[in-house]
Amino acid sequence: MNEPLVLLDYGSGGKAAHRLVAELFVRHFANPILAAMDDAALLEVSGRLAMSTDSYTVDPLEFPGGDIGSLAVHGTVNDVSMLGARPLYLSCAFILEEGLPMALLERVVRSMGEAARQAGVLIVTGDTKVVPRGAADKMFITTTGIGELIARPAPRGSRAKPGDAILLSGSVGDHGLTILSEREALGLDAGVSSDSAALNRMVEALLVAVGDIHVLRDPTRGGLATTLNEIAVQSGVVCAVREADIPVQPGVAAGCSVLGLDPLYLANEGKLICIVPEEKSETALAVMRSFAEGRGAAPIGRVLAPAGKTLAGQVLLQTRLGGGRLLGMLEGEQLPRIC
Amino acid sequence: MNEPLVLLDYGSGGKAAHRLVAELFVRHFANPILAAMDDAALLEVSGRLAMSTDSYTVDPLEFPGGDIGSLAVHGTVNDVSMLGARPLYLSCAFILEEGLPMALLERVVRSMGEAARQAGVLIVTGDTKVVPRGAADKMFITTTGIGELIARPAPRGSRAKPGDAILLSGSVGDHGLTILSEREALGLDAGVSSDSAALNRMVEALLVAVGDIHVLRDPTRGGLATTLNEIAVQSGVVCAVREADIPVQPGVAAGCSVLGLDPLYLANEGKLICIVPEEKSETALAVMRSFAEGRGAAPIGRVLAPAGKTLAGQVLLQTRLGGGRLLGMLEGEQLPRIC
Repeated sequence: MNEPLVLLDYGSGGKAAHRLVAELFVRHFANPILAAMDDAALLEVSGRLAMSTDSYTVDPLEFPGGDIGSLAVHGTVNDVSMLGARPLYLSCAFILEEGLPMALLERVVRSMGEAARQAGVLIVTGDTKVVPRGAADKMFITTTGIGELIARPAPRGSRAKPGDAILLSGSVGDHGLTILSEREALGLDAGVSSDSAALNRMVEALLVAVGDIHVLRDPTRGGLATTLNEIAVQSGVVCAVREADIPVQPGVAAGCSVLGLDPLYLANEGKLICIVPEEKSETALAVMRSFAEGRGAAPIGRVLAPAGKTLAGQVLLQTRLGGGRLLGMLEGEQLPRIC
Repeated sequence: MNEPLVLLDYGSGGKAAHRLVAELFVRHFANPILAAMDDAALLEVSGRLAMSTDSYTVDPLEFPGGDIGSLAVHGTVNDVSMLGARPLYLSCAFILEEGLPMALLERVVRSMGEAARQAGVLIVTGDTKVVPRGAADKMFITTTGIGELIARPAPRGSRAKPGDAILLSGSVGDHGLTILSEREALGLDAGVSSDSAALNRMVEALLVAVGDIHVLRDPTRGGLATTLNEIAVQSGVVCAVREADIPVQPGVAAGCSVLGLDPLYLANEGKLICIVPEEKSETALAVMRSFAEGRGAAPIGRVLAPAGKTLAGQVLLQTRLGGGRLLGMLEGEQLPRIC
C-alpha cells in the first residue's frame, strides 16, 4: 500500500490544489471567511491594528510539546499580543517539498486548527506552494497575524523606565533545549518539552488588571538575554537581572550543562517579559500565576538608569555567586531552525 | 576577494540578525513604522479590511521584467486589490539559504522597496530565517497584505451574472513563458518579459468609474482558463469566451507553439479579469486602457446562464475556427515554481 504523498500538482493553482484546500485546510480551519475561498479574506476590524509575521522552519517538524503547525500559530499570536493587541485573524502560507507524506501534513494542519481555536483566532486566508524534491526541507510555514489594539498607550520595547520591575512568566530554555535534544538524538531524556503556547489570554488579563504595561516581549530566538538587550537599547536604560531568580527547569539546566549551552540564550515559545512600575509588580505576578502558562512567573530584576560605567543599552547579570557581569546579545547562532 | 554571503547567524535573532535588519531592510523599505523595529507593527486602518498572503518560490530569482522581490509585492498587492480594497500595508518574511550572495539579496530587497513605493504601500514588519545549505533553494519570500475595503458591495468570484461582459486587461501567458524560457535556457529569444505589475491604481480607478464591479480576479497560477473556471463554479454560471479576442503576444504564441503549451493556462502577474454589466463594458475598457498595464485591455466574452448541455461551472471557448469546446481547469502542473 503506497502512502499518499504531496505532489507538485497540489501547488499548481489547478484541480488538485483546489481539492487540497477544500478537503484539508477548509476542513481543519473551519470558518466562513476562509470557506469563501477567494484570494483574499474580508474582515471586520475597528480601530488601530497590530500586524506581525514569522516564517517557521523548525527541524524536526514534530517535537515534545508541539509541532511546526502549533508553533506557527502560537508564535504569531504572541507577537501580535506583545504590542497590547487582541489577535483576531491569521493568514498561513505553506511551502511544501514534493513527496512530503500527506499524513504528516494533515497532522500539522489539524494541530494549527486546534491551536487557533484554543487561542480564539481565525485562520482566514492562505497559500500553498509545492517545490520539487530537494528545493526545500519538508515544510515551511509563514503565518501573519493582525489584531485590534486594546492597550493605550501600547506596550513598546522603548517604554522601560528606571525603577520598573522586570517580570518573567516562567522558566527559560524549554523550547530550545527540546528541539536540540530531539534533533541531535542526544538521548538526554531530560523529560523536557517545548513551552510553545498562546499567551494572548494572559496578556489581555494583564492589560485589564495592570493598566499601563510599559513593555511586553516574548523572548524567542536569541533567548531572554537577547530580548533584554533589545529592550535596554530601545529604551536607553540598563536592565539588571538576578541569575538566581530566573527560573530554569532542572532538566533544562542539566541538558545545558552537558552541552555547554546557556539557557539565557535559548529560544522560548510560550514565555513573556513584562516590565511594569514597581508598585504594579505584585498584581501582574498574581495575574500571570492564575494562568497555566504563567504558573512559574517570577520577578527577575529591575530597570536602572545608566550610571558610572554602566551604559544605556546594557544588561547586567547579578550572578549566583554575588558578582556582576554584562550579559551581551547573542553573538553567533547556537541553533539554526529552532523555530 | 571573497564575495559576502548570507550566514546562519543572520537569522539567529542575535547581533548579526539585527545588523541585517537595520542595514538592509530598514534602509530599503524606509518607513517609520518598520523603523520602530518591534516584533509587530502598529497601523491605522478604518472600516472593513481585506487580507491576503502568498509565498513566492519562483526560479530563477531574477528574470526579464522583475525578480522574486517585485513579484512578491505585486502579487500580494493585486490579491488585496481584487477584493475591491486599497492595499496599505505589507509584511514580508524571508527564508534564505546559507551561502546566498549578499549582493543578490540586496538587489531583491531594493527591488521590493521600489515596487512597494510605486504601488503606494508600506512594508511595515518582517522576519528573516536562514536555513543551512541545502535546506532551501536560495530564497523564498512570503508577503501578506492588508487593505481598506473601498468597494461596497465588494467584487467577489461569486457575483458574476448572466449577461455580464468578461473583460481582460491585456495579453496572457507573458509571465509563465518568460520564467520557463529563462529556466530551461531554451534560447527562445522571443523578446518576452514578465508582466509582473501592481494593479491597485487601475483597480481603484475602475471602482470609481464603473461603480459596482461584479468580479475582479487576477489570473495567476493556472492561468486565465483556471480562473474563469473558478468564477463559473463560484457564481453558478457559464463563462463563454472567444479565443480570437484573447490577446496573446506574438513571442508568447510562438514560444507556446514550440513547447506545446497553451497560453490560457500560463501564469500572469499583472493582468486582471473584470466582469461588469454589459452597459458598463465600454467605461471599464476605457479606464483600463488609460493605464500602461491595461493598454491591451479587451472584451473577451460573456457570462451565460446554464442552458441545455452547458452546465453551471463550465467555461466555453469559441475557437478561432468557429467551433466550441469546454475549457477545463488546469489538471496537472505545467510549471512548478512559476511564482
